[in-house]
Amino acid sequence: MDFLDELRTLREQVSFKESFSLPEKYSNVVIAGMGGSGIAGKIFQELYSRKPLLSLDDYHVPEYVDSNTVFISMSYSGNTEEVISSTSEALERGASVFAVTSGGKLENIVDNAIKIPPGLQPRSSLGYMLMPLLNSFTPPDESSINRTRELLEELDNSNEEMKVEAEKINRRELIPVVYGSSPFRAVAYRWRTQFNENAKVLSSSHYFPELDHNEIVALKETYHRKRFIFYSLEGTGEQRNNARIGATEQVTGLEINRILPKGVSDLERIFYLIHYGDYLTYHLAKLRGIDPTDVSTIEKMKKLL
Amino acid sequence: MDFLDELRTLREQVSFKESFSLPEKYSNVVIAGMGGSGIAGKIFQELYSRKPLLSLDDYHVPEYVDSNTVFISMSYSGNTEEVISSTSEALERGASVFAVTSGGKLENIVDNAIKIPPGLQPRSSLGYMLMPLLNSFTPPDESSINRTRELLEELDNSNEEMKVEAEKINRRELIPVVYGSSPFRAVAYRWRTQFNENAKVLSSSHYFPELDHNEIVALKETYHRKRFIFYSLEGTGEQRNNARIGATEQVTGLEINRILPKGVSDLERIFYLIHYGDYLTYHLAKLRGIDPTDVSTIEKMKKLL
Repeated sequence: MDFLDELRTLREQVSFKESFSLPEKYSNVVIAGMGGSGIAGKIFQELYSRKPLLSLDDYHVPEYVDSNTVFISMSYSGNTEEVISSTSEALERGASVFAVTSGGKLENIVDNAIKIPPGLQPRSSLGYMLMPLLNSFTPPDESSINRTRELLEELDNSNEEMKVEAEKINRRELIPVVYGSSPFRAVAYRWRTQFNENAKVLSSSHYFPELDHNEIVALKETYHRKRFIFYSLEGTGEQRNNARIGATEQVTGLEINRILPKGVSDLERIFYLIHYGDYLTYHLAKLRGIDPTDVSTIEKMKKLL
Repeated sequence: MDFLDELRTLREQVSFKESFSLPEKYSNVVIAGMGGSGIAGKIFQELYSRKPLLSLDDYHVPEYVDSNTVFISMSYSGNTEEVISSTSEALERGASVFAVTSGGKLENIVDNAIKIPPGLQPRSSLGYMLMPLLNSFTPPDESSINRTRELLEELDNSNEEMKVEAEKINRRELIPVVYGSSPFRAVAYRWRTQFNENAKVLSSSHYFPELDHNEIVALKETYHRKRFIFYSLEGTGEQRNNARIGATEQVTGLEINRILPKGVSDLERIFYLIHYGDYLTYHLAKLRGIDPTDVSTIEKMKKLL
């Protein structure tokens, strides 16, 4: 599938209705996943705070994981070694284990696995990965899903603005630095990783208000100040975090490009911002003459290990 | 106090004996703190996994915070607005609230506050902040504390290696990218923020194995590849994460400077790596002709808000 076709499947993905049969009682949640499969858990972590939730991106589970834990394994391929390792541990501990995968080993070791369509890049399956989490813990209403589809379709049909932005980055060979704030911290991280995987450009991310306690000090005097470009995804959590964007600009004399999320609910806004970043990094790849789907470096690394 | 004198207090700080009188029963832990005061909670999070633990660096507490929560507020000044906000919420929810502070409002709103000496930069008080957490939840043995003091003293007396490294960075005006892996992910973040606050240089951080799922793709073809310098703090968790350092070098053709932690216990290794980064960034500041203690940007920002 062409990468643009992949991107266009996102609007279908938000209508994915599968959910987990959660146990009646549980006291904490762990969502395991790496890279493009792990981002769903990182995003969901900011939307759910009824119980302690850990987004796990390493080989081993914390000591507290036991029969009171809901453990959800996310791996598009179903063969990610870190996820297989942590999932095996969770099963041994007696946790309630669920999975989202297109196949692989994961399907064999987890009984309650939601199957999603194969053939996509893991990072293009975000809807399939995120919707089961939302459907299970905090079901979105149908109108919000419909509006999300419309917003995504709008972006599919008209992403000129993102192309112009990508041209600006490419003309001056800028390193993108992306700032988020609650509940879009993980979306800033997603942008960073899409700059990496699609456009093959290094990128950094951080979030308000934390960055005002450290990174802000470097913004005025760092080496190569003109070689960075700054983005800020305006949050809908604490409003003082948005006031911080302007104040950070004022104190450092730097321009921070504000990306305003469209949409009424956080669901809409998250998918809108995600897709904005998808197109920005897609266009940047094209301008650089780089294949956005090529992640052979990751494959080579896996073989070496 | 001169910044070097501040750095030299760290070896005294590790002998700080205060601890919290934790309740007999609690089901989760939240440690609130920003920037130089928040890093202790981020480091501790990797050392403790008996119960769910959240390192909170925003204004509001999660929904689950209640009387079963141990809530620890860390603010060197005692006046950090995000921490005052979250601590007030935790008190309203009936959590068991503790604090570490040198004074300020926090001392007035939290009964169980451990007082630490004033007059330091918040980021230079890491020992005073981290030890009460360790003493309360996972008391280190005296021999490990003694060895930590010795290691820190060694670095205080001989940090030529870090100066040479700083000269390399400054001569070529390199942007440092710091990789950690469990249990030193937060130490990589600490290095990043010390590059920011001490040397006024932008920096990025990430961690194994996650970076092998995204950032690795950018390392070969990014803009300005030669303008970055890469460090990796060798971890003591999953050994495959260390194998990943070499494999990442091989696949990308980049050199990643490995920093090997000295010490027998993770306590020693963490403080060793922290102090290594302290000196590296201190020397870089000096070479740039920059005052490492100057964080007036943060002060200006606070006034603007």
